[in-house]
Amino acid sequence: MKISDTGEFGLIDIINDLISRNTKTAPGSAKELLIGIGDDTAAWKCRGRIQLSTTDILVQDVHFDLAYTGWDELGHKSIAINLSDIAAMGGIPQYALVSLSLPGDTEVEDIKSLYSGMLELCNRYNVTIAGGNIASADKIIVNITLYGYTDNTVLTRSSAHPGDKIAITGFTGLSKAGMIALQRNMKMEPAAMEILRRSHNSPEPRIEFGKVLAECGVKAAIDVSDGLIADLKHICDASKASALINMEKMPVHDLLRQYFKDDAISLALTGGEDYELLFTGGDRIMDKVKGRLPEDIHVIGSIESGLPGDIKIIDEKGDRMNIKDSGWDHFR
Amino acid sequence: MKISDTGEFGLIDIINDLISRNTKTAPGSAKELLIGIGDDTAAWKCRGRIQLSTTDILVQDVHFDLAYTGWDELGHKSIAINLSDIAAMGGIPQYALVSLSLPGDTEVEDIKSLYSGMLELCNRYNVTIAGGNIASADKIIVNITLYGYTDNTVLTRSSAHPGDKIAITGFTGLSKAGMIALQRNMKMEPAAMEILRRSHNSPEPRIEFGKVLAECGVKAAIDVSDGLIADLKHICDASKASALINMEKMPVHDLLRQYFKDDAISLALTGGEDYELLFTGGDRIMDKVKGRLPEDIHVIGSIESGLPGDIKIIDEKGDRMNIKDSGWDHFR
Repeated sequence: MKISDTGEFGLIDIINDLISRNTKTAPGSAKELLIGIGDDTAAWKCRGRIQLSTTDILVQDVHFDLAYTGWDELGHKSIAINLSDIAAMGGIPQYALVSLSLPGDTEVEDIKSLYSGMLELCNRYNVTIAGGNIASADKIIVNITLYGYTDNTVLTRSSAHPGDKIAITGFTGLSKAGMIALQRNMKMEPAAMEILRRSHNSPEPRIEFGKVLAECGVKAAIDVSDGLIADLKHICDASKASALINMEKMPVHDLLRQYFKDDAISLALTGGEDYELLFTGGDRIMDKVKGRLPEDIHVIGSIESGLPGDIKIIDEKGDRMNIKDSGWDHFR
Repeated sequence: MKISDTGEFGLIDIINDLISRNTKTAPGSAKELLIGIGDDTAAWKCRGRIQLSTTDILVQDVHFDLAYTGWDELGHKSIAINLSDIAAMGGIPQYALVSLSLPGDTEVEDIKSLYSGMLELCNRYNVTIAGGNIASADKIIVNITLYGYTDNTVLTRSSAHPGDKIAITGFTGLSKAGMIALQRNMKMEPAAMEILRRSHNSPEPRIEFGKVLAECGVKAAIDVSDGLIADLKHICDASKASALINMEKMPVHDLLRQYFKDDAISLALTGGEDYELLFTGGDRIMDKVKGRLPEDIHVIGSIESGLPGDIKIIDEKGDRMNIKDSGWDHFR
């Protein structure tokens, strides 16, 4: 059997199974592990404090194309996607390790741009680049590891409960729309193209929002990287619950409607790489969150006690909608 | 200017400079950072305890070739090279994050072998695989991040002093010899081939040794990954000192002499990927170390107060020897 048959998430299940069977008999470090494979970051204790750690890779021509992404944007994005995982746990980021693989004919100036993009974002969130590794390869590979901590409750994928409302920060689908607009060289207002390009190349991690969610009593969260539906399914799978989305409550950005017409809804639901936070909580918690965040959040549905992992989407008439692709899978 | 012009270490200097200039003005996390770029691991404080973290990548057809390396060996090696960095700081390893990039036609059974190789070594050193990431790519990429800690002094590259003796655990050059033997399909005794193959594919990280070195008062150490001379130069550069190696004291394994004749000495001095520990300390410290380690160490020279970074090698007659290549550089 090939991994294109199991898919990315089937493969993760197989690996998780191998490791869990092994960890059960392993002494020591496994005992201090709070969260292992299957959430946005790993978490363990260091003298009572919860340490968070996550790693994510960007491979040339898989995750980015230098025709559409500048070196400084690549630097920004490589740090942002990892910061976003710390945000989804409600954590405070601290240190980054940068593992680079580069072709020998890479320009030194481009590497300086790459680091400028990283450092600009690191400075904003008080992150120090503490180390890394450089190797040669045919393609550019940027693998970042990010460390953080929290003294609050950790937000996890597995803490959603039937009765919880489901909410999302910002808008989804803009990153995928940006990628399509760049690849197809779509004709649009420069200001519109700039918004879409930035959404794709320079996503803003929701560090402050994640911290507020934890402080307001939210327990379940994920960052939208695979696509809203796929990531909601990750929450439902981990929490052994189902979900209902009311499409009329779902925020769909004007630019999606204007330039992508009939595909706007599908982009918003399945686009991926948005790095917005999707979270669940009771009505009182949602009210608290609304009072604390500087931007509107949208309550788009609820967690239900149906078939674990099942996501039902209904339109304004209450009819069930079908979505073709539910999100990104690296091997399908 | 291209990075093939600056070389790997020139590029690291440029990056280090960019980051240090930035870190000086950055508040917060930078203050708790003990060791940044330029040592075997980064180190920072968490509630008084010293946390260590390192990352290293193996890229298919750059670092390994599946014709000569089995999937389980690849798993072993990917963890071993990171454990070795923790060993070189005198630390105790705890958690690993595994970031994989794989072609879609990879066999699931091969991934199981990969993880078996990782887990076998993780179990031996009480390391838990706590998370990771999977993406698609044309080539296999295994990027491991390893975390550990120490409650002892950290062994660094920058703590060598003129007057220190230089010592090495085990033998160097066997890994490179193994790679050459496999690539050239050299005729040799099966037992000899097995030793060389294991040295190349399944190096043993010197975790216990690193701990003992720190307990005995050693301050400066590095693991031999780029080659003995190159790594000694890293110590000398960081410590602003020079070094003298007495070739007659240098251990050269019988298999190198038997199968590689005139190249034996060059392999031992420059081979790389040995993952032995190279360290420095006064005579009393070296005696203590000898009393504590289960294997012989070899004192091969001394740290001098000459030109920083200069390495002088003398033969049994006291004549200076010249070595063609001093070690591995990814971009030269």
